[in-house]
Amino acid sequence: MNPFRADTPNDKTPEPATIVIFGASGDLTKRKLIPAIYNLLIGRHLSRVAIVGTSRTVMSDDDFRESSLDGINKYSRQRPVDERVWSTLSRSIHYHPGAFDDPAAFVRLRERLEVIEKQHHLPANRLFYLSTPPSAFAPIIRNLGAAGLVRPGENPFARVIVEKPFGTDLASAIDLNRDVHEVLKESQIFRIDHYLGKETVQNLLVFRFANGIFEPLWNNKYVDHVQITGAETLGVERRGAYFDHAGILRDMVQNHLFQVLCLAALEPPGSFKANAVRDEKLKVLEALRPIEPEQLEERVIRAQYLSGSVLGAQVPGYREEEGVGKESQTETFVALKLFIDNWRWGGVPFYLRSAKRMPKRVTEVAIHFKNVPHRLFAGADGGPNVLAIRIQPDEGITMSIGSKVPGQALEIAPVTMEFRYASSFGVEAPEAYERLLLDALAGDGTLFTRGDEVEASWRFITPIHQAWLSGKGKMHGYEAGSWGPDASTQLLGKDGRAWRRP
Amino acid sequence: MNPFRADTPNDKTPEPATIVIFGASGDLTKRKLIPAIYNLLIGRHLSRVAIVGTSRTVMSDDDFRESSLDGINKYSRQRPVDERVWSTLSRSIHYHPGAFDDPAAFVRLRERLEVIEKQHHLPANRLFYLSTPPSAFAPIIRNLGAAGLVRPGENPFARVIVEKPFGTDLASAIDLNRDVHEVLKESQIFRIDHYLGKETVQNLLVFRFANGIFEPLWNNKYVDHVQITGAETLGVERRGAYFDHAGILRDMVQNHLFQVLCLAALEPPGSFKANAVRDEKLKVLEALRPIEPEQLEERVIRAQYLSGSVLGAQVPGYREEEGVGKESQTETFVALKLFIDNWRWGGVPFYLRSAKRMPKRVTEVAIHFKNVPHRLFAGADGGPNVLAIRIQPDEGITMSIGSKVPGQALEIAPVTMEFRYASSFGVEAPEAYERLLLDALAGDGTLFTRGDEVEASWRFITPIHQAWLSGKGKMHGYEAGSWGPDASTQLLGKDGRAWRRP
Repeated sequence: MNPFRADTPNDKTPEPATIVIFGASGDLTKRKLIPAIYNLLIGRHLSRVAIVGTSRTVMSDDDFRESSLDGINKYSRQRPVDERVWSTLSRSIHYHPGAFDDPAAFVRLRERLEVIEKQHHLPANRLFYLSTPPSAFAPIIRNLGAAGLVRPGENPFARVIVEKPFGTDLASAIDLNRDVHEVLKESQIFRIDHYLGKETVQNLLVFRFANGIFEPLWNNKYVDHVQITGAETLGVERRGAYFDHAGILRDMVQNHLFQVLCLAALEPPGSFKANAVRDEKLKVLEALRPIEPEQLEERVIRAQYLSGSVLGAQVPGYREEEGVGKESQTETFVALKLFIDNWRWGGVPFYLRSAKRMPKRVTEVAIHFKNVPHRLFAGADGGPNVLAIRIQPDEGITMSIGSKVPGQALEIAPVTMEFRYASSFGVEAPEAYERLLLDALAGDGTLFTRGDEVEASWRFITPIHQAWLSGKGKMHGYEAGSWGPDASTQLLGKDGRAWRRP
Repeated sequence: MNPFRADTPNDKTPEPATIVIFGASGDLTKRKLIPAIYNLLIGRHLSRVAIVGTSRTVMSDDDFRESSLDGINKYSRQRPVDERVWSTLSRSIHYHPGAFDDPAAFVRLRERLEVIEKQHHLPANRLFYLSTPPSAFAPIIRNLGAAGLVRPGENPFARVIVEKPFGTDLASAIDLNRDVHEVLKESQIFRIDHYLGKETVQNLLVFRFANGIFEPLWNNKYVDHVQITGAETLGVERRGAYFDHAGILRDMVQNHLFQVLCLAALEPPGSFKANAVRDEKLKVLEALRPIEPEQLEERVIRAQYLSGSVLGAQVPGYREEEGVGKESQTETFVALKLFIDNWRWGGVPFYLRSAKRMPKRVTEVAIHFKNVPHRLFAGADGGPNVLAIRIQPDEGITMSIGSKVPGQALEIAPVTMEFRYASSFGVEAPEAYERLLLDALAGDGTLFTRGDEVEASWRFITPIHQAWLSGKGKMHGYEAGSWGPDASTQLLGKDGRAWRRP
């Protein structure tokens, strides 16, 4: 299953269970969750499951089955639909309408689950997937508890997956954790960060710890700095109103980029048990040097996109987007200069950037190594070595090295050693949601964010966001389709460095 | 010019000079030397030169010009012939017959050179290229000295290039060095090892010292062992009689493979001046742990090829080859287990193998790294990392690393990161002889073997050869087209290792 499960007792097909999806009428259920379950069945990773969709919307079992089949037809990575698998799955799909804030509805849900489990000869193992607005997380979990649906204990198990965002700042994350823990043990709660479900994010750990050659170089003796980029070409699309309340710092950096940062920077765990890995991630987050308000200008750059051209199409500026205020102070670009104050990374800057309306969609970690200690080839230079781990798209790793240019002159040019995931394996990587659903069913929380991790990341992010709210930190502009404002170039430029063009 | 010249005063077009080729009627002159000079002129690397061929054969200037043009037409890497360059070159080509052992012939040669230099307005800079049987080296150099053709001093310069082999054992190499030094200073003598002229051999140094990431791993802390392979598909062809007196140990290992070994293993020199690099190579050779006669069986494997199939063609066994004795005890395969007894390489075996009639023509150095100190991914293994530097053909480097196989199961498979010289640069690498001629004209001896290096390598090789002559060391057989005898597999097998299949 996942890299961490191999030496745990959980390395097995999960037990039969019922997956209860809150927010079943929503987009995520149709696009991701149902196709993921279907693909897991195709791959024979699941034993028997039942699926119970629930939401305020009134529909029949057959309506939900139809919508599920439509989702599989459109979004499954394995098409055309396998009739045999679908006919089995279809019989296991049920729908149960109910309001998230109505305790009585949860009692009815329990009764319905008991009927369904009896019908399918399933034990009372239940995985509740909260694909709802964040404001519903606490009420649902409280009502699950009140209706006796999530008693502790592993046999039968009761587990809850919550979608992002988990809180919007430190205080709300602490509150939500407190609400959750009133009903659930930490081992029952699975906070999703779908980046952790991506093959190449997990591969970061495999590269680092299944190979002997990277780890000796992976420290401040050899690394000059690290760049982490999460760039989208998209703007806010139809989510302008949502995004304008979030901003890229909270929407991308606090969760996805920080998780990537953790995996790139963590110490080798002693084992790959869930808590061993998450302890090491937590240590990274706790070692992040806080950004004091007076350092805001020199360590954080924020900006909004202006109109411009992306992938050949003219696009409007951020403040002209539907749902966005004309005087919005929400950032669509952020660049940060971070330090991890520990023995391994002392003095090594980690530059992070994330933005919408970039020239290219790319997520990558680039380790920029120091130059040679003594330059023997005067006048010739391949530049420092860079190891770039591409998370998406075109997953793989490239290492830029200096090589002699053929010919009588001494000329050294950078060339790349390259490994591309797709051309090396020729099989499609599973969707992140397949991995994450499977892991939650198997009770493996390694690829989910632990409560203390979430709080640690908000502890770092919230003061920056609050300083912005108080008017600190200039809002720059950048042309849509550019790599961001000049101030971002300067953030590295004043250190004698430059952003990669991925 | 070469990697070492950049910070020396020699980084310039060589001064006008006359190249005097002894053995001018031979194959090497036509196939390599004349085309190399032509290519250097095409590339504007040379200022004015004259070429004077000499040998016992009687021919006219025009005969030699015709044979030269034929050589360029057939063997130059730049074709068709550039009429303008050829017409200039052709006028500078002369021929002067004479016997190597006739002192009077050298006096006449000097007089002829003075006429030619006057005719071409050339200074008296002279490069003598000894493309003759080794037995002629000492007499020619003695006669050059007697005729006043090689006085010391750099202005005008007199330099001598000698082809291989330089001696056939330690005693003969010492004798030859003594004869040479009676006439020439060490800085005037250029012992050719054409492997050192290959781009990728020089690139070994560029990879190691123009990149910061390799050197930290390049020692006994991270390297498990090193494999150096020099494999040919050819048999002895028409050189059976010559080869049967030499053997692969003396024909390939003592010179070419040991030079590759030196460049792979040497300490970073303080500068790239010729003697700084050669001092470091000498240190490697002197640190080689001698192979005592009683260790012969466990550290050296020798073998002869039997009949078999190479690249789809049936070929005879070695003893059936023309010019080879029916009971020949000459090896066509050798594998050695070497140790470099110094701080960096203490305990790291270097396995060398060289042979004729292998399944594939390949020369490469492969650094086999140690496995991870702690296996976190139980049951999954990409195997230890291997960095392979391919010298010929298909020059480049590959690094094998472990990567997660896409999918829900934890499977780690070896994949390769790859850099290929040809596809990265798209220009043809110059021939080794171009580089070496240019360097000798510029007075840069870095890519030539110094007298003490030659003696050090013979000091290691000769006792092995002598032990064989005394009947020690079993002669194994191997099928032509195989990777050698079982005993060679066992040489690594008993250490828990295996030869790469390049």
